[in-house]
This record gives sequence, structure tokens and C-alpha cells, in this order.
Amino acid sequence: MSKLLSCFEAAAWLKDRNDFLLITHRRPDGDTHGSASALAQGLREQGKTAFLLHNPEVTPRYKRFVEDYTAPDDYDAKAVIAIDTATAELFPKNAEEYKDSISLCIDHHKSNTHYADFICLDADRASCGELIFEILMAMTGSVSSETAERLYVALSTDTGCFSFGNTTANTLYVASLLVEAGAPNRELNKLLFRTKTHGRISIEGMLTSVLEYSFDNKVAIASITGEMMRTAGADEDDMDDIAAIPGSIEGVCIGVTIRELTSPHDCKVSVRTKPPYDAQAICARFGGGGHKLAAGCTIEKTIDEVKIALSEVISEQF
Amino acid sequence: MSKLLSCFEAAAWLKDRNDFLLITHRRPDGDTHGSASALAQGLREQGKTAFLLHNPEVTPRYKRFVEDYTAPDDYDAKAVIAIDTATAELFPKNAEEYKDSISLCIDHHKSNTHYADFICLDADRASCGELIFEILMAMTGSVSSETAERLYVALSTDTGCFSFGNTTANTLYVASLLVEAGAPNRELNKLLFRTKTHGRISIEGMLTSVLEYSFDNKVAIASITGEMMRTAGADEDDMDDIAAIPGSIEGVCIGVTIRELTSPHDCKVSVRTKPPYDAQAICARFGGGGHKLAAGCTIEKTIDEVKIALSEVISEQF
Repeated sequence: MSKLLSCFEAAAWLKDRNDFLLITHRRPDGDTHGSASALAQGLREQGKTAFLLHNPEVTPRYKRFVEDYTAPDDYDAKAVIAIDTATAELFPKNAEEYKDSISLCIDHHKSNTHYADFICLDADRASCGELIFEILMAMTGSVSSETAERLYVALSTDTGCFSFGNTTANTLYVASLLVEAGAPNRELNKLLFRTKTHGRISIEGMLTSVLEYSFDNKVAIASITGEMMRTAGADEDDMDDIAAIPGSIEGVCIGVTIRELTSPHDCKVSVRTKPPYDAQAICARFGGGGHKLAAGCTIEKTIDEVKIALSEVISEQF
Repeated sequence: MSKLLSCFEAAAWLKDRNDFLLITHRRPDGDTHGSASALAQGLREQGKTAFLLHNPEVTPRYKRFVEDYTAPDDYDAKAVIAIDTATAELFPKNAEEYKDSISLCIDHHKSNTHYADFICLDADRASCGELIFEILMAMTGSVSSETAERLYVALSTDTGCFSFGNTTANTLYVASLLVEAGAPNRELNKLLFRTKTHGRISIEGMLTSVLEYSFDNKVAIASITGEMMRTAGADEDDMDDIAAIPGSIEGVCIGVTIRELTSPHDCKVSVRTKPPYDAQAICARFGGGGHKLAAGCTIEKTIDEVKIALSEVISEQF
């Protein structure tokens, strides 16, 4: 079991040490990248040495925020810190060697398995970035514009630009201080939330026009064929969170997105539900998994066959 | 020319008076409704009498926030206040009788024509709601949860849930205080930003399929006909912020949305730009107004004629 540290104690812990290596999680998002790069930047501004372990899954969207901090191959770290990472199973492949030697974990996931020696954990925070902000403020009383920019990425992406249910008064308050400190929120919002590629806008248009409703409009199914992807000029990056669309429609309790994979007899299925409907139970029937309100599976059938198979399983939910 | 009041002076002005009638603008949005109903609520909590003049264009989305404040027909107002309304031309039809007798205008539009006796104006605020918050804080030092809820509607809708370029550190700071005061941001965000009606999802699909690009893909124009609205089953509420879509496309600097109004020879035009392109300058050429990056106008032409007229004016921006 880890020893729990407050943000003030974590600040003191960091002050006493040097040569940090920061680890981000698999399928990295804005919070893990923004939090880790902000901490590295903040530590460097205090004369310390801090790097991020390269994350092989970093996407073009977040690369610009982390690339200045990538650890060289021969870096000799004295303290390894895991950022926004609930379990060591979420470490990227190249971080697995550190699994049993994590000195500190800074995280906001209730499900954290306490795998580190020390842990700074607050599950009431919308983002890990809020904890990094408090730690840096405890260390120096201010954040630079470079640090603020990265923390804004962390806070805003983990809250859907402050629209998700996890957004608290504290999230908004910290965001206001970050903007005050120079975080370019206008440019960041445009980049992260208000820009759609031509491919994305086309595929969204197609998706909404092929929506099929059933079960008294409580179920909405969107099918995306390979042909649609080619016509739209859309690639994998354009499909980020596309599965949220059917589930966001007024009155829809079960939103399903079916995507034809490269082989036309393989379909990737994403299910989003509102309580009490159980996305995980639906996908488990096809060997998939996930959470109660968001789950997925792969089914070796054509789109039309998948629709029939899914409808049978979905009918059990009503 | 109006006499300019700071928020503190506006607070004193309000303290000295009673029996207020608040006027909202045509095509009412969340800021005018949220700001006016918050001010009415805040004034009532101080023992004063305050009502909103019924806005005949109020939509179901915002009705719940204003219906408790509608002035009775025989209401004898002593002070008439215009909220978030840049010119008297934006008054609803039933407010026209007050055009020359507006005591106070509270607004954040740079284009305000100073038609009122007194004006509390700050064009650096993202929303009129921020000014109402400061005025109420100057009067009593706090806001109730009912007032906070309405102010949150004002701030969040005028900033696209804090994602638009107008969002400042102050907007986020006030939002954090409103959530702290009891504004149910989770429920409000779900209602205002994270639920799409069937009509909205259909019209979005149609809109993305009728996008026309010009000027090297720097300009995107979307035309929405009355026929499209009927086919989609979309109403006015479904069109909120629809104008942002063409401007959100990667590489687009001037996004234009043309909407056919009930008369097929009247079009409502919304323009969204990225710096240095000037939406206000474009719309001013057709008698419209707004802000530098977001403006609108009404043009008495068919959609095809509007496209030609707009293209001429837009070409001057390049």
C-alpha cells in the first residue's frame, strides 16, 4: 500500500529530490500528456532535471506539448513518477521495466491500485492537472505561461472543455488562474474543441443521415462503411469519439456505432448507454468489454448481420 | 449620448429605484434571457419589484428560466432596462413603445448605439451575465442559487461552454463562483451542450452535405433552406450555434451560414471569422452588426443572390 501525500507533502517530496522520469499512460490523452509535461516544465524552472518517458502511442494532437521533454535513451533517472495512471497495467510497453519501482504516483482515479511507494490521489478532481497545479503552486506560488498552457490542455480535455459532469467549481477556478497566467485558451480551444477536419465533417454528415432508430426511438444505430470512410476522405484520427454521437441524441438511451473494418466481414461495435441500460452487458455477449455506460466489441459479420444480432441482444434490455 | 455607469454605479442606480421592467432582445439567446431573469431574481431578493417584458420569440429551451418573471399586462413600470441589446432596432415588436424611454441599458456589445439614458457597457466581457454578476455582487455581496443558475446559462451559452475565443479568465472565474453558489452546471451543460434533438442531428447532417468551399477553401458557406428545416423537423431552438459549424472546419477562415427565413426572399446570414478577417465589417455592409469574429445580418434576397452578394464583399477581405 502506498503512503498517501497531500499536494503540499508531494511538493516537499519533489523539492527533496532530482532527476525525475515521468510516465504517461497507454492510449494517452490530454490529461496525462498535459499534466506530465507541465510538471516537467515546472520542475525545470526550479533548476531540476525532469523528462518524460517517450510514449509510443502519442498522437499528432498532443505531440507538440510533450516533444521538448522526451528523455534521452541514456537518461539516468533517480525518481520515477507515474502521472494520471490508475494501474501499472496501463503503462506503455517501454515503461513496463519500471512497474515495481514507481516512487510517486499523482492521480485522480478512484480505481488507483496504489502500486507506487507514495501516492498523491484525489478522486474528486476532474483532472490530474488540478493536482499538478496545486503541487506547483505549493512549490513556487506561481506557474509560468508554458506550464499554464500544458495544465490548461489537461483540465480542458478531461472535462470536454468544462462541459462534462465531472467539472467542479475548482476546475473552473484553476482554469481561470491558468488563463490569467498566460494559457492561450482561445488557440487551445480552437485546436482541441473547435476544429474539425474535412474528413471528420464529412463523416459526421454521413453518419447523421444513416441513423436508424428503433425500440420507440430509445435505440439509435449508426453504421459506417469502409466506402463511407473513403468517400469522406476520413482516417482513423477523424474517428475520435465519433461513437458518442448516437448516444447524445435526445431520448436515446442506447447509442450504437457499427464500423466496418478493413475486412468487410468484421465490424467494430461501440455502445453508449444512459442508466439503467448496460453497454457492458450488451458487448459481453459478443466477447467485448468496457464500462457500464460505454463498451465495445468486434463481431465477425456484415453490417446488416451485426444489426440483427445486436437488436436481439438489445431487446433483452427492455 | 448615454451617461456611462460602472457596475458599482449601476448598482447604486438600481438601489435608488424600483418597479423595473426588463427588456430582452429579438431572437433571444441564453445571455439575454439568463441575464435578465438573473437580474429580476436578484432585485426581487432585495425586496424590489422586477419583471421581464414577455419576449414573443422565447424558445422552449429558455422558457423555463424566464417564465416566473413575465410582467402582467397592467404592470406599471417606473424604470425600463434593456439587457444585452445593442440597438433599439433589436427590441421585440411589443417593446417598441419603450424605444425612446429606456432608462438603463446593460450590455457588452461594442456596437451599442447608446440609446438609453444610462448605460453600463463593457465590450471586453464575453457575456452580459458577467456584468449582471458584478452589479448584483456590488449590491449585496452574494448571489443565490436561483440567480447563479440563470447567470450560468448566460455565461455558458454566450461562450459555447467556455470554448469560444471570447472566454476570458474573468468568465471562468465568475463561472467558478456561480457553481460554488449552487448553479447546477452538470444538468445545465447536459441540457444546453450535450443533448441533440432529432431535428438538430438531421439539420447538422444536411448542413455538412451542402457545404460550399471557395477562396482556396478559406471560405465555407452553408445554406439552410426552409425546406431543409421542414424535412429535418427542426425548429428555432435546434439552430443554436449552428453558424459555428462552417467556421470550425480545418483551414476555413470565414464561415458563413445562410438561413432562409419564413419569407423565401429574406435570408439570415451569420458570419464567423478567424483573425484578421472581420465578420463585423462583412455584415455591416448589409446593415448588420456584431463582433469582429462573429456577426450577422438579414438580407432581402434569395439564397443564391445572397451568395453572390456575400462573395463580392468577402473578396475584399483577401
